[in-house]
Amino acid sequence: MLIVLRQKNDQPLITHIQNLLKKKYGCESHIIGSNGRVIAVPGDTTMVEIDLIKNIEGVRSVDRVDRPYKLASRERKDRTEIKLSHGVTIGTRGTLVVMAGPCSIESEAQLDETAALAKKHGATVLRGGAFKPRTGPYAFNGLGEDGLKFLKKAGEKYEMPVISEAMNEAQVDLMEKYVDIVQVGARNMQNYDLLRRLGKCRIPVLLKRGLAATLEEFLLAAEYILAGGNPDVMLCERGIRTFEEEVRFTLALGSVPALRELTHLPIIIDPSHAAGKARWIADTSRASVAIGADGLIIEIHPRPEEALSDGPQALDEAHWTECMEGIRAIAGAMGKKLA
Amino acid sequence: MLIVLRQKNDQPLITHIQNLLKKKYGCESHIIGSNGRVIAVPGDTTMVEIDLIKNIEGVRSVDRVDRPYKLASRERKDRTEIKLSHGVTIGTRGTLVVMAGPCSIESEAQLDETAALAKKHGATVLRGGAFKPRTGPYAFNGLGEDGLKFLKKAGEKYEMPVISEAMNEAQVDLMEKYVDIVQVGARNMQNYDLLRRLGKCRIPVLLKRGLAATLEEFLLAAEYILAGGNPDVMLCERGIRTFEEEVRFTLALGSVPALRELTHLPIIIDPSHAAGKARWIADTSRASVAIGADGLIIEIHPRPEEALSDGPQALDEAHWTECMEGIRAIAGAMGKKLA
Amino acid sequence: MLIVLRQKNDQPLITHIQNLLKKKYGCESHIIGSNGRVIAVPGDTTMVEIDLIKNIEGVRSVDRVDRPYKLASRERKDRTEIKLSHGVTIGTRGTLVVMAGPCSIESEAQLDETAALAKKHGATVLRGGAFKPRTGPYAFNGLGEDGLKFLKKAGEKYEMPVISEAMNEAQVDLMEKYVDIVQVGARNMQNYDLLRRLGKCRIPVLLKRGLAATLEEFLLAAEYILAGGNPDVMLCERGIRTFEEEVRFTLALGSVPALRELTHLPIIIDPSHAAGKARWIADTSRASVAIGADGLIIEIHPRPEEALSDGPQALDEAHWTECMEGIRAIAGAMGKKLA
Amino acid sequence: MLIVLRQKNDQPLITHIQNLLKKKYGCESHIIGSNGRVIAVPGDTTMVEIDLIKNIEGVRSVDRVDRPYKLASRERKDRTEIKLSHGVTIGTRGTLVVMAGPCSIESEAQLDETAALAKKHGATVLRGGAFKPRTGPYAFNGLGEDGLKFLKKAGEKYEMPVISEAMNEAQVDLMEKYVDIVQVGARNMQNYDLLRRLGKCRIPVLLKRGLAATLEEFLLAAEYILAGGNPDVMLCERGIRTFEEEVRFTLALGSVPALRELTHLPIIIDPSHAAGKARWIADTSRASVAIGADGLIIEIHPRPEEALSDGPQALDEAHWTECMEGIRAIAGAMGKKLA
Repeated sequence: MLIVLRQKNDQPLITHIQNLLKKKYGCESHIIGSNGRVIAVPGDTTMVEIDLIKNIEGVRSVDRVDRPYKLASRERKDRTEIKLSHGVTIGTRGTLVVMAGPCSIESEAQLDETAALAKKHGATVLRGGAFKPRTGPYAFNGLGEDGLKFLKKAGEKYEMPVISEAMNEAQVDLMEKYVDIVQVGARNMQNYDLLRRLGKCRIPVLLKRGLAATLEEFLLAAEYILAGGNPDVMLCERGIRTFEEEVRFTLALGSVPALRELTHLPIIIDPSHAAGKARWIADTSRASVAIGADGLIIEIHPRPEEALSDGPQALDEAHWTECMEGIRAIAGAMGKKLA
Repeated sequence: MLIVLRQKNDQPLITHIQNLLKKKYGCESHIIGSNGRVIAVPGDTTMVEIDLIKNIEGVRSVDRVDRPYKLASRERKDRTEIKLSHGVTIGTRGTLVVMAGPCSIESEAQLDETAALAKKHGATVLRGGAFKPRTGPYAFNGLGEDGLKFLKKAGEKYEMPVISEAMNEAQVDLMEKYVDIVQVGARNMQNYDLLRRLGKCRIPVLLKRGLAATLEEFLLAAEYILAGGNPDVMLCERGIRTFEEEVRFTLALGSVPALRELTHLPIIIDPSHAAGKARWIADTSRASVAIGADGLIIEIHPRPEEALSDGPQALDEAHWTECMEGIRAIAGAMGKKLA
Repeated sequence: MLIVLRQKNDQPLITHIQNLLKKKYGCESHIIGSNGRVIAVPGDTTMVEIDLIKNIEGVRSVDRVDRPYKLASRERKDRTEIKLSHGVTIGTRGTLVVMAGPCSIESEAQLDETAALAKKHGATVLRGGAFKPRTGPYAFNGLGEDGLKFLKKAGEKYEMPVISEAMNEAQVDLMEKYVDIVQVGARNMQNYDLLRRLGKCRIPVLLKRGLAATLEEFLLAAEYILAGGNPDVMLCERGIRTFEEEVRFTLALGSVPALRELTHLPIIIDPSHAAGKARWIADTSRASVAIGADGLIIEIHPRPEEALSDGPQALDEAHWTECMEGIRAIAGAMGKKLA
Repeated sequence: MLIVLRQKNDQPLITHIQNLLKKKYGCESHIIGSNGRVIAVPGDTTMVEIDLIKNIEGVRSVDRVDRPYKLASRERKDRTEIKLSHGVTIGTRGTLVVMAGPCSIESEAQLDETAALAKKHGATVLRGGAFKPRTGPYAFNGLGEDGLKFLKKAGEKYEMPVISEAMNEAQVDLMEKYVDIVQVGARNMQNYDLLRRLGKCRIPVLLKRGLAATLEEFLLAAEYILAGGNPDVMLCERGIRTFEEEVRFTLALGSVPALRELTHLPIIIDPSHAAGKARWIADTSRASVAIGADGLIIEIHPRPEEALSDGPQALDEAHWTECMEGIRAIAGAMGKKLA
C-alpha cells in the first residue's frame, strides 16, 4: 500500500498514520522517496480499511496495490478444473460445459421429460430448482426435498451430474445428499452464513454474481468459500442491473476476459436470466461461448407457457435445438468440445 | 390488466390467451372496445407473469394497471405508526426519530460510552451491531449474543429502544429477546427465509433497500413481512449502486416523495452508509430531514479511527454535535419535533 | 394509447382528459369497456406527453402501446442495406463488415501504414479520426481537414470506403467532400443540430449509442436523421456506463437481439471503446460476431504506445492478427462472409 | 504519479517505462524506495494517459495522485462568486439564488405572466428556453431569437437577470446579446466546440452535469470553459441515469458535499428535471437547500397542462407557492438569505 500526503515532510501526520497502521492493523510502514510525501506499507494490507486512511485530513491519495483476495487470484494458479461424476470436468481449457433443465422442478414426470430433452441435444449437467427465491410473497416456492430426490434420480437415469440452488445452510445439508453442484443465487452472493457453510461443503459451488456486485466483491464472495476449505468454486455471470429497459438484465460479457486475468476459477454464463426472453437466448449463448466462457447454464421446459416459474425465459424444444446448434458451431470455431 | 394485440380480431390468438389466463392463473378476461385488439383482465392479476404474456407472438403491449403489492400499498391506509418502549413512536406526522450508535458493538465499555454520546445529543433510539456482514472473509464479525446483552443493558440505562441487525432466522430468535427493532441489511433485502421469519416476529422491522433494488422490489420485500403477519415495517433508504465514484453509494433521496405516495410505511434514511465519509454526513442528514423522512439512522463512535468496523463513516463527537444541530434546525423549519 | 382511471365512471375527469387530448394534441378518444375506467386514444399518439397524462390526479396508468419512432421501426421493413464504394455493402444478411484504422490520423505516413495493416488482415472499411472530442481541455485535438485528405487518399490507394467522425454541422460539410460514412460519437447522440444536418446529408451515418441512452432514445436519435431524409443510418453499440470498474464501459451485447426486433437498421459493435484494453478486444470481437452484429469498428495502430490518442485500446499487429483470426472463425461458424 | 511494478528490480521494464514517459509526455521519473518496484513521476502528469501505463505488461498499479483539472480545483481558491445585474450574486456563502420560469418561452404574454409569478414568490433570476433540445424529431423546438427578445424584455420589466440555454456556437452569439447567464444542457456537457466557445464568452455559464458523467468528467467540462478564459462557471446537478423507475432521474444530492471539497465553483440544483413530477419538486427543493446548494433552477408555468414542453414537471402557482415557502423555511434554518 502506498499513501501519498498533501504536504511534504508533515512529521506529525506521518507519525499519526504510522502509529495507526501499527496499532490497529499491526503494519509496519516507512517513508520512501526524498520529498517526505509517500508512505509505503509493505506486505499484506488486506485488513487495512483503505477509506479510513483516505479520510485522514492531509492524505491525498491511497493505492492498495494488491487485490484484497488471495486464494481466488490468478497469481495463485492458472486454472481450476472441477471434476464431477459421469466423467464431466469443468474449467479445462478446450472444453465447454452446458447445464440445462427447468427453472423449477414441478413433478417427477416434468423433470424426467425435461432431462430427456436436455440430454438429447447435448447438455451434460442437469439443472433443476427445488427451493425457489421469489420476489413476491404470493408465488410458487418449489417442491423442496422431494424435488431434490427427483433430480438425483433423473441425473442417474440420464447419466448427468445435477445442480440445484441452496438459499440457506439447512438446504446445503440436503444438497450434499442429492446433488453434484450447489448453486448460490445472485441475491445470496453476499449471504455470509451461506458462504461460510459452503466453505465446509465437499461439493463444488456455482456462485452467481450479485446484480450490483463489482468484480472485486464477486471474487471476495468466492474467497469466503475458498477460505473455508472448498477449492471448487465456479463463477457465474447472469446479468447486472443497469438503466436498460428492453433487456431484463445487462449481461456483462465484457467481464469474462477481465475475470480470466484476475482469477483461476471457471466462468459460467447464465443467458436465461439476463435475456429474460426465450427467443434471445440462442444469440446470447453463442456470444457467451465466443467470448471464452467455460460453460453455460440454460433454462428449458417442454411447455414453457405452463411452467410454474420463469416460463418467459424457458426454451421449448424448438428454441433449445436452435440454441444448441449455435453453441456447437461456435464451440467448434473456438476449437472447443462439449464436456 | 390490459393486453393489446398487434392485429385486429385475431380470433385464434385471443382464444389462446384467454385459455392460458384461465387455465394457468384462473383469470377471466374479455375483449373491450370495437377493434378486437384489447383484452381486459379484471380483478387481481398479481399472479399473472406479465413477461409470459408479453412474449406471446402477436402481443404488442401489456399493462398490469395494479401494483403487485397490496398490504404495503398507500391505497390501504395513510400512515403506519410504530410504537416502541420509552415513549418513542416512529412514523407519526410531525415527528422525527434519530437512531444512533456504533456500527459494531466492540465491548460493554465502548457501547456505554457511545450510548451516552447518542443520548446526550438527542438520539432516541440506540443502534449497535452484534452480527456483522463483511464483504471480505478476513474481517471482524461482531460479538454475537454478548453484544446484544450489552445493547439491552445500555438501552435500559439510557432509556432508549434499541435496534440491531439479524442476518438469519436463528439471529431473529435472539433479537426477540434483546432488542426493540430488528434490522435487515441491504444485502438481505431479498433473503426470503429471513423475511418469512420476520413476518412471524412480534417486534418491528427496519428493512434496508438493496443496493440495486427498484422501489417495486423494495415494497415486495416489505410485503413478504407484512403478509406473514407483522404490521410494523419501516423502510430504510441507504444508497444505491451507480457509476458515481467520489461518493460510495448514491443516496436516492428523490425516492422519498415517490415512496410516500406508494406506501404507508415509515421511511428512514441511513446517511452513513451512503456517504461513507464522516464529514459529509451532517449535510446529508439535513437533506434527509428536509425531503420529509420520518427518521435517520447514523453511525457514531467515540474514536472512529479505532473502530473495528466502518470507522471511516462513524461520527466523532464533534461531527455528531454538528450533525444533530443541523438536524434540529431543519426539523424545526419543517415543523417537526424529535420523537 | 390506453388510459386507465382509478375510479369507475368519473365523468368530470373523463371530460377533462378528453378535452385536453383534443385541444392540446388534436386526438380523439373514447371510453371502452363497461366499467368506465379505460379511455382509448386511437391513431398516432406520438405527440402526446405520456407523463402529463400520468400526472393527472385520478389517472392510474397509461400505456402508449405504440413505439414513438416510426421510420426506424422494424414494422416498416425488414433490413436496411447500405451500399458503399469498392463494392462494400453493410447490413446484408450473411455478411459482416470490419472497419479498422487509427483513433486519430496523426500523419500521412502513420495513416498509410495503418491502412496497409487494416487491409492486409481483412478490414474492408478504413476508419480514422480527424476531429477528436477529448474529455480534458489539454489533449491532442486532431489534424482537421488535412487528416480527411490523407484519409481519402488512403481509402483510394487501398480500395476501401472511409469513415470519420463529425462533431458539428461545419464538419459534416467537410465529410461530404472526403468520406464515405460519417460517424456520430456517443457524446453527440443527442446533438440535435448535428442530427438534423445529417438528415440532409447524402452519405451514410454511423450513429453511436450514448453511454446512458436507452434503446428508445437511441432509435429516436436515428429517427431524427431518417426523418430528415437520409435513409442510410447504422447503429453502433459501444458500451454503456454502469457501476463496473474493471472494464471501462459495459458492452451491452444483449441489446443486439433486442434491437434486431425493434429496427431494420444495421447494427455495428465497437469493442475498442468498451473494453479499453487492447488485449480484451479479440474476445469481445468474437462475441460481437456471434451475437449477430452486422459489423465491427476497431482501433488499430502500428505502435500503440506512441499513439496520440486512445493508445491503450489500439491493437498492434500481433493483437490485430489474432483478432481477425477469431472474427473469421466465428463468422464462418455463423455462415457469414466478410463484406 | 506513482507506478508500481509486479517484480522487483525489473530493469528492462523500468527503462522502457522511463523512456516512454520522457519521449511521449516529456516527464522525468525515478525509482523510489529500496525494492525497485515504485516509479515516481513528479510534477504535472495531466497529459499522461494512465490506462496506457496500466496496460503495460508487468505494471501492477498506477496512481495519478493529482486530479486532472487545475483551474476548477478547490486547491486554487475557496469560492467563486458570480455577480449579475440587478444586484444578484451567486456563490456567496450565506445566500441562495432561485431561478424560475417556463421550460419554453411560448409567447410574450405567457412569458410575462410566468415572470410575474416567478418574481411574486421570490425568484431572483428568470429562466426561459428559446431553443429546445427534444428527444424526438416531432416536437416543439422553441421560438428562437424572438424568445430571447421576450426574455430580455421580461428581465428588464421584472428586474431579474435572465438565463437561457444555448446548444451551439451560433446560439451563444445570440445569448451574448440578450441574456445574463447561458445554460449548457446535460446532453451538451461534453460538446467541446460549445465549451470552447463558452470559454471565450463574457457572460457566466451554468453547466449541467451529463446524465452519465462522473464528477471528474463534470469538472473537466468546467475546466474547458475556465481554460478558455471565462472564470464564471456554475455547476448544475440535475439527476443521473440509474436503474430507478419511479423517479425520472436519480438526483445525486450526495455529490454536493463531494463537489464542495473538489471545487470552488457554485453549485446549483435542478429539481424539476430530476423529479419529473410537479408534486415532488417542493420536497426535493427543500433537500437541495438543506444539503448546501448555492441555488435552484425550477420550471414553473401558469397552466402546466397547456405547456408546449415539459408540462408534467412545471409547477402551477399553488405548487410554486408551496415550493418557495419550503425553500424559505429551510434557507432560514441554514442561516441563508435569498440572493
